[in-house]
Amino acid sequence: MTKEERLQKQFDFLLEIDKEKQVQRQTPLADSSRMENDAEHAWHMALCTLILSEYANSEIDVARTMAMCLCHDLVEIYAGDTYAYDAAGVAGQAEREAEAASRLFGLLPEDQKEYIAELFQEFEEHQTPESKFAHAMDNIQPAMLNNASNGISWVEHGVRLSQILHRNELTGEGSETLWEYSRDHFILPHVDSGEIIDG
Amino acid sequence: MTKEERLQKQFDFLLEIDKEKQVQRQTPLADSSRMENDAEHAWHMALCTLILSEYANSEIDVARTMAMCLCHDLVEIYAGDTYAYDAAGVAGQAEREAEAASRLFGLLPEDQKEYIAELFQEFEEHQTPESKFAHAMDNIQPAMLNNASNGISWVEHGVRLSQILHRNELTGEGSETLWEYSRDHFILPHVDSGEIIDG
Repeated sequence: MTKEERLQKQFDFLLEIDKEKQVQRQTPLADSSRMENDAEHAWHMALCTLILSEYANSEIDVARTMAMCLCHDLVEIYAGDTYAYDAAGVAGQAEREAEAASRLFGLLPEDQKEYIAELFQEFEEHQTPESKFAHAMDNIQPAMLNNASNGISWVEHGVRLSQILHRNELTGEGSETLWEYSRDHFILPHVDSGEIIDG
Repeated sequence: MTKEERLQKQFDFLLEIDKEKQVQRQTPLADSSRMENDAEHAWHMALCTLILSEYANSEIDVARTMAMCLCHDLVEIYAGDTYAYDAAGVAGQAEREAEAASRLFGLLPEDQKEYIAELFQEFEEHQTPESKFAHAMDNIQPAMLNNASNGISWVEHGVRLSQILHRNELTGEGSETLWEYSRDHFILPHVDSGEIIDG
């Protein structure tokens, strides 16, 4: 591959991922004016990592965790966003996302395809301190926004506390401190006020 | 400051920066469906850095450059986005942004306030290899989108080639290779087709 071909492939990928800005999530902006999209969510998670890394249960490589946050939802460009509490959608999610990963990351030169695929795989496997922390950000960032927007997304979807606790089963593995803060400040007050169903 | 107060300040900052998702830029998405916002732009720049860092004129700290990309427009939450080719707007920009930086970064605990302010200052001063590369991304990412969207933003604002070349005077200091690519693939073809005024 010539240098020119390599650069062309890199820009093809960088242009294609522009589409992540159009993958809408089920989390509203803090002021409830609209739902956020995957690119905004990834940006916010990366900055949460930069500011909150001191609370990781074990020391993390902050740069790698930020890169993981920035990339973790790229496959949704082809696979779509699956709402965390949509059981039917979650069923086929892993397969759809694997196909999407192969197609999207395949735009890159081989070495970078492998690097991004590894980063994505590490996130999915949820085993390293970095991926555990990135998953914690993936759950805590939307909880912060749901709290700020008076739980409108929880109300709209009739979400139950048991679903949220199940979704967050591993959040404390990334950061016990941040999970407790999120639970006590962002989630439980909305059970008391009825926006999350107590059950 | 107690641990609880520190964490509260960090989350206050992380919630406040949600507003960056509502600072609209003058660059359209690749498919021209709407303008992008600062958070999307910052996310895209950080990923451009991750994929293109090999072309930096001198070796860069990729993690620091990515963090700089993610933070470089935060002050626009209070100061607003200034269009690159709006001479009147550019005039008061530095002052507005310095005030905004003090107000926004002041939400953080002192050590992190200093860290983010330094990162922002380094970007503004345009002296280090990292800040030069981040500036290159700040110019090349929108050029890529303007090219993909057939230069509609250039047409709408009646932008002249001399303005674009002036704006990009230092882009080559970050990466000569990427500046040449951007000029030849993203910019000059639109002079030939008349979307950029030749003058």
